[in-house]
Amino acid sequence: MKIIKNGTIVTAADVYKADIRIEGEKIVEIAKTIEPLVNEEVIDATGQYILPGGIDVHTHLAWPFQNTGTADDFETGSKAAAVGGITTIINFTNPGKDQTLIENLHEWKDKASVSAIDYGFHSIINKYHEGILDEITVLAEKEGVTSIKLFMAYKGELMVNDLEMYKIMKKAGEVGVITAVHAENGDIIDDLVAEALLKGQTAPIYHAKTRPSSLEAEATGRALSIAEVANAPVYIVHVSCKEAMEQVERAKKKGVTAFGETCPQYLVLDESYLALEGFEGGKYVCSPPLRSKDNQEYLWKGLASGILSTVGSDHCPFFFEGQKTLGKDDFSKIPNGVPGLEDLYSLMFHYGVQEGRLSLQKFVDVTSSTPAKLFGMYPTKGTIAIGVDADLVLMDPNPTRTITQKTQYQNVDYNTYEGTEVKGMITCVLSRGDILSKDGQFIGELGRGKYQYRKAFQPL
Amino acid sequence: MKIIKNGTIVTAADVYKADIRIEGEKIVEIAKTIEPLVNEEVIDATGQYILPGGIDVHTHLAWPFQNTGTADDFETGSKAAAVGGITTIINFTNPGKDQTLIENLHEWKDKASVSAIDYGFHSIINKYHEGILDEITVLAEKEGVTSIKLFMAYKGELMVNDLEMYKIMKKAGEVGVITAVHAENGDIIDDLVAEALLKGQTAPIYHAKTRPSSLEAEATGRALSIAEVANAPVYIVHVSCKEAMEQVERAKKKGVTAFGETCPQYLVLDESYLALEGFEGGKYVCSPPLRSKDNQEYLWKGLASGILSTVGSDHCPFFFEGQKTLGKDDFSKIPNGVPGLEDLYSLMFHYGVQEGRLSLQKFVDVTSSTPAKLFGMYPTKGTIAIGVDADLVLMDPNPTRTITQKTQYQNVDYNTYEGTEVKGMITCVLSRGDILSKDGQFIGELGRGKYQYRKAFQPL
Amino acid sequence: MKIIKNGTIVTAADVYKADIRIEGEKIVEIAKTIEPLVNEEVIDATGQYILPGGIDVHTHLAWPFQNTGTADDFETGSKAAAVGGITTIINFTNPGKDQTLIENLHEWKDKASVSAIDYGFHSIINKYHEGILDEITVLAEKEGVTSIKLFMAYKGELMVNDLEMYKIMKKAGEVGVITAVHAENGDIIDDLVAEALLKGQTAPIYHAKTRPSSLEAEATGRALSIAEVANAPVYIVHVSCKEAMEQVERAKKKGVTAFGETCPQYLVLDESYLALEGFEGGKYVCSPPLRSKDNQEYLWKGLASGILSTVGSDHCPFFFEGQKTLGKDDFSKIPNGVPGLEDLYSLMFHYGVQEGRLSLQKFVDVTSSTPAKLFGMYPTKGTIAIGVDADLVLMDPNPTRTITQKTQYQNVDYNTYEGTEVKGMITCVLSRGDILSKDGQFIGELGRGKYQYRKAFQPL
Amino acid sequence: MKIIKNGTIVTAADVYKADIRIEGEKIVEIAKTIEPLVNEEVIDATGQYILPGGIDVHTHLAWPFQNTGTADDFETGSKAAAVGGITTIINFTNPGKDQTLIENLHEWKDKASVSAIDYGFHSIINKYHEGILDEITVLAEKEGVTSIKLFMAYKGELMVNDLEMYKIMKKAGEVGVITAVHAENGDIIDDLVAEALLKGQTAPIYHAKTRPSSLEAEATGRALSIAEVANAPVYIVHVSCKEAMEQVERAKKKGVTAFGETCPQYLVLDESYLALEGFEGGKYVCSPPLRSKDNQEYLWKGLASGILSTVGSDHCPFFFEGQKTLGKDDFSKIPNGVPGLEDLYSLMFHYGVQEGRLSLQKFVDVTSSTPAKLFGMYPTKGTIAIGVDADLVLMDPNPTRTITQKTQYQNVDYNTYEGTEVKGMITCVLSRGDILSKDGQFIGELGRGKYQYRKAFQPL
Repeated sequence: MKIIKNGTIVTAADVYKADIRIEGEKIVEIAKTIEPLVNEEVIDATGQYILPGGIDVHTHLAWPFQNTGTADDFETGSKAAAVGGITTIINFTNPGKDQTLIENLHEWKDKASVSAIDYGFHSIINKYHEGILDEITVLAEKEGVTSIKLFMAYKGELMVNDLEMYKIMKKAGEVGVITAVHAENGDIIDDLVAEALLKGQTAPIYHAKTRPSSLEAEATGRALSIAEVANAPVYIVHVSCKEAMEQVERAKKKGVTAFGETCPQYLVLDESYLALEGFEGGKYVCSPPLRSKDNQEYLWKGLASGILSTVGSDHCPFFFEGQKTLGKDDFSKIPNGVPGLEDLYSLMFHYGVQEGRLSLQKFVDVTSSTPAKLFGMYPTKGTIAIGVDADLVLMDPNPTRTITQKTQYQNVDYNTYEGTEVKGMITCVLSRGDILSKDGQFIGELGRGKYQYRKAFQPL
Repeated sequence: MKIIKNGTIVTAADVYKADIRIEGEKIVEIAKTIEPLVNEEVIDATGQYILPGGIDVHTHLAWPFQNTGTADDFETGSKAAAVGGITTIINFTNPGKDQTLIENLHEWKDKASVSAIDYGFHSIINKYHEGILDEITVLAEKEGVTSIKLFMAYKGELMVNDLEMYKIMKKAGEVGVITAVHAENGDIIDDLVAEALLKGQTAPIYHAKTRPSSLEAEATGRALSIAEVANAPVYIVHVSCKEAMEQVERAKKKGVTAFGETCPQYLVLDESYLALEGFEGGKYVCSPPLRSKDNQEYLWKGLASGILSTVGSDHCPFFFEGQKTLGKDDFSKIPNGVPGLEDLYSLMFHYGVQEGRLSLQKFVDVTSSTPAKLFGMYPTKGTIAIGVDADLVLMDPNPTRTITQKTQYQNVDYNTYEGTEVKGMITCVLSRGDILSKDGQFIGELGRGKYQYRKAFQPL
Repeated sequence: MKIIKNGTIVTAADVYKADIRIEGEKIVEIAKTIEPLVNEEVIDATGQYILPGGIDVHTHLAWPFQNTGTADDFETGSKAAAVGGITTIINFTNPGKDQTLIENLHEWKDKASVSAIDYGFHSIINKYHEGILDEITVLAEKEGVTSIKLFMAYKGELMVNDLEMYKIMKKAGEVGVITAVHAENGDIIDDLVAEALLKGQTAPIYHAKTRPSSLEAEATGRALSIAEVANAPVYIVHVSCKEAMEQVERAKKKGVTAFGETCPQYLVLDESYLALEGFEGGKYVCSPPLRSKDNQEYLWKGLASGILSTVGSDHCPFFFEGQKTLGKDDFSKIPNGVPGLEDLYSLMFHYGVQEGRLSLQKFVDVTSSTPAKLFGMYPTKGTIAIGVDADLVLMDPNPTRTITQKTQYQNVDYNTYEGTEVKGMITCVLSRGDILSKDGQFIGELGRGKYQYRKAFQPL
Repeated sequence: MKIIKNGTIVTAADVYKADIRIEGEKIVEIAKTIEPLVNEEVIDATGQYILPGGIDVHTHLAWPFQNTGTADDFETGSKAAAVGGITTIINFTNPGKDQTLIENLHEWKDKASVSAIDYGFHSIINKYHEGILDEITVLAEKEGVTSIKLFMAYKGELMVNDLEMYKIMKKAGEVGVITAVHAENGDIIDDLVAEALLKGQTAPIYHAKTRPSSLEAEATGRALSIAEVANAPVYIVHVSCKEAMEQVERAKKKGVTAFGETCPQYLVLDESYLALEGFEGGKYVCSPPLRSKDNQEYLWKGLASGILSTVGSDHCPFFFEGQKTLGKDDFSKIPNGVPGLEDLYSLMFHYGVQEGRLSLQKFVDVTSSTPAKLFGMYPTKGTIAIGVDADLVLMDPNPTRTITQKTQYQNVDYNTYEGTEVKGMITCVLSRGDILSKDGQFIGELGRGKYQYRKAFQPL
């Protein structure tokens, strides 16, 4: 049993001072003053916020992609997460060509068994066949996987077509599964890439030029219309621009059960990073690409007003040397993705709360409560209340720290936000009552993370 | 000390099972299981929701208006509120021509001293003069009145002009006061009314015809633009139609600190009621008038999506016989207003939660949390958390009851929602730990209500 | 040489009284008073409007489709057109699987050689292969075909995919060819149809239910985005609903060179026709399907305000007996299309001009001037001015007539608008100076129609 | 009689080559080739456009304003107009406090009798009284004044209030009079000006800062709503920004008979001019003020798409020395207005047609046809057709010229567009068949201009 004393609790609705008692993995008491029993550990949170642990529903740990694989596995990744305030992730699977979704899920559960934090999976469906619809039912009803992921880009590797998407979404909707969608028109992007390369346009900036906002907005609109006809819930991942966000807004107004996610890279960085000297821009290649700076304000407002529902890191790390540099002479060979899991929570706190774009409550909402609710983990996770897992972050709002690769746990040779000074220090992170980190040092155990068997989708 | 056991607590973010301990006026402990001490009263909430008490920021108790006065005073009104789940109201004042706002406030505090529930006041400013700006400062800084109300209609009685509104809003913004606005273009409405009467159009339905949506939308847009230029927070009361709501949405997107309120009469009733046979329509005369039915869906969606922030009752009761009938032969003589305080909470629970238009959390948000936050009473009120006033409603979601004048506490000879069957029974209402009602019977004390000294406006 | 005296000339900009002299095929003089030379024929137009001949850019004469073929060929079709005020059509081709577009065009020119009126062709591209891009160039530069047509529906028969559309549009844009698009998401529609049939939903109304507005809007948005990226002009045929029209508006605002067409069936009829008793609804099966009545007002306003640019008949006639009845027990076997060429002009004049929805000038604009301009025939056609082909319609605005199959020239056993009374009688139709019809009787010659070698696309 | 040979005629719909014969004041023949009769004057227009004379419906010649008066009277102004391609103006009147509108009109007709070009008047109503409604009827029915002007700014001098506007618009609508509105919220602007001056903000740039876009948009929306309720046509003059334009668009979509005008200063200049060094910015003070540059693109698109209907010069010239400099130490004393009549037509041709923002036809539409139609002068004026006044401009599209005060006819010591190089030279201007200017030199007669007795308003 533990007690956290003298802190200020924040939920998606409330901010108030109280003490918390944890018994086993759960929060069992919240009170004005809790006196410690004998042998009860006391954590002093004076002057600090007590926040629900971050839930990052968009990670690619140990993920094979574009002839290589991401740099973090569940060991390095979960340590980085823990230090950074993320206590639960939902990672993507990636089924092999001859595997069922269930076989593949089991493989991933094995891979993840080393994790320090809790985890679940979105099953990617990268190939349509008749049996797949039954597999979705099994996932939902037997395996606790109540979200899947479809790609409208990366043809040959991941992409499904409209009809496949429709059939999958329809079944998913029927069995309480929400469909996450990567929305970019891959067919046309592939052709734009080929055109660019033909013209000798090989630098990283052409990654952005060949994936214009209009093709993200188009695919977003399409996915939302298909979800509408399929009468199914849909979650648009990594909305990067105003134009795509407007599609989400339009669909919501029509009554589509639609949600949008954005990522810190789209809120904080912009396409000028892709044009940095030398091959430096290669570090910032992700898809959708970084956009022009004017989009940032719209995305922040979208989060604040509820047009967008969540933030995810889209953590998809590749080494600069040896991986990113594969595309030195051809941007299309740069593996798509940036590291971000470790800094997601701090970046959102700094740019969101400290700079006045999000209230404390809205911060909790987009980093924890809504992710938990949309993905079937609420009220086991996602808030601070009785009976909820004691996944907690203590945040001292006053100190500043500088983000840098030098001190990170992420297993990669750069940091997307290198040199950024953020105000707010994560002093302690608990997962189901266990202390995982203190003052930026991982002190938890590997392998203690639990697979999250998730409930069927419920509208908010 | 009291304990509420076995209920399901709802906040604007969360739904979870826990016991609550109340000590004095406050919630001091929320825990999985709280064992009662000797002599501690236990309320059993098995199968019930424990909800924050409703905060109705739009009431007209004891209000002189249109040569008559409203039918409920703070005695009858506060009893009706208490029974109906409303534990705090903000009532309008109405300063006399030769009174300062402060003198008038003190009069109102006297009037309200009999109240069974807590109360605050929005000071109406119905007359501009140089000293008024200083009075606003005094209200905010010395009297805890951090909201005022302006009218763009009712010329001669209440209306201020654009420049007055601008100057008032500007000062209000500077001293942390939010300005509530009744937005209808009164000048033109007065002329439309005169035109109608000239043509012999005297029936209640002409009340609606002479106050078209377009003139509400116009005034709404104007008030929002003035607030924008004044850099001040603004709260549009009783948004009745899509067209006005779109103005609120437009302003929010521009970054105006703007909020919209709607009322159950606009969500549930429509203008066909004004055309009921005989003079029956007179019962439903309020301003803005009831609108065409297609507006309802938009208002509900507006609440659910956050374009609208709150619901208020706009409780402004007049006897049908003797008051409403003053306008039997001339709709313009019908006092404007309907009773609604007693049923606000039940109607929102039934049509909102039970019929699937609002989540439980959103219900709490619009009936309690956001009103508390916008009007400087949070976190003293507006949620269920440690240190918060124990203003609680126990709601059994399963039984149904029929709304009727026969059993109401409202001091008026009809009920706006007569015969409506609502699902969900308020079994117990507490205010600062005192039980005010049980199973629809008022068992509290008069005069125990406290004036709420409110804090300066803070953006959400 | 001919003179038309005493009429009122209407162009897309102007209405004025003047006499017209025709020399050979051209208008050579417009003057206050023209005195006839010896032997010069005089047509008296007292009390009548002199209008530019209608240009219907959406016809399917002699068109093989869905295992059958349309009921009108260039003989019956051109006679019906001539009587109805249409002096030029652009018909669709339909290349065979092993044919080049050019070979196919030549076949169609042969088919059309019997025509009484002028004609051009949109080449349908129903199959993508590498050589097709060169064929488009040849069409534009050698054959005067500066428009093509792509389908996003009718998979297996006509449909192309997104990438093919992109490549084709890009080339088209480069060589001055505008791409007409049938925008419905065929993939998903096919599945909805299969689902419906599985459930035993075989009646004509299910034609509408399985092709919802949202899938037209989706495909419209997609085509417009692809055109945007391809930097090519695009023409959305038969916009049937508000939702799709809003996509056209959105694209125009973004600067896409986009145009929308609607058809009288969408302006005048609605989906209730598909639910007529017995199999009567089969007569009204066309794609997109007839929509709910509330769309009509938006489409009319779209035409009036310029969001939509043209009207076409989408004349695609099938006999009720023997053709439409193929789908008696399965709506998906009903050939898609309705007759409309003969009545297009009269319907637009009646419902547009006479009922106050369009000015006289706007009527000319959408039925003649803009079609001519968009499709490379201006100023040879599309207006009344010096040097322009003398394609003229004399319209007496006062008499009424009843549309009926009994007296039509269309070779089909019903009329889509049977029994409709229209105000305005076409008294005389001239094509390049030849009188083709008088008072509803065809008195022209077959085979006199000329192929229109069209110019490259120019923005308006 | 005159003939114009070999030119290219442009109307709002068409562009074609033809000869024109003028007899008396009218165009009587347009033909492929017109052979001159004996003594018939021939103007050679080879290589040139023949355009309808410009109609500037927004001029302030000889206008008393803000304790001074505009620098051009009808002599200098009409000469400048004639040279610049403007053959008709509608000037504003400005009734004295004790004058009827009719008396005032007669005064203005006297003032204008010296004019070289045709003219009409919008009667300003700057004071409401009961009799004014009858005066409007007399204006429309006896005096041919079918437009009036109301101001929502310039309190004390010109401004009317909402109710007055409503009553005036209602009557105006009934008698076929369109109401032009200057839409800025004058009440609040006056206060912002006073605030600025109090802070010592006296430079010209504060003219812009104290008249923000939001207050133009507010007033625009209000005027449009009032027109909607009054069921009357309304013409918003000098729309300067996107935000106000969106109000016009919104109203049009709702079905309000609404039109918007913009001016070259808003299309071509921006608020940075107000911040020019020294007091140079004073030259550019007009109301609404110049806006941020991003508005320009929206205004151009608004003209091209028909959201905006016309351009006017808002010619309101004041000498820099002696007039503008009145406000050297106090921007609020700078007379509001810029000269522009002489260059309106050239600027629109250059920035519109030559730079590809407007087609030739749209240029004619916004500078001549639509102004004539909206203000009751069509088809006497506004196009090139039989029976229409021979008001013609010959424009050689190839030469360039530099706009400069040195060579202007405007009676003012600067030119708003000094140094601007425009492509396109006006070589000849005719008014009712009389040649007024050649190659930039006025060669016409003063006093030949005719008062235009205008018809009742007709919707387009």
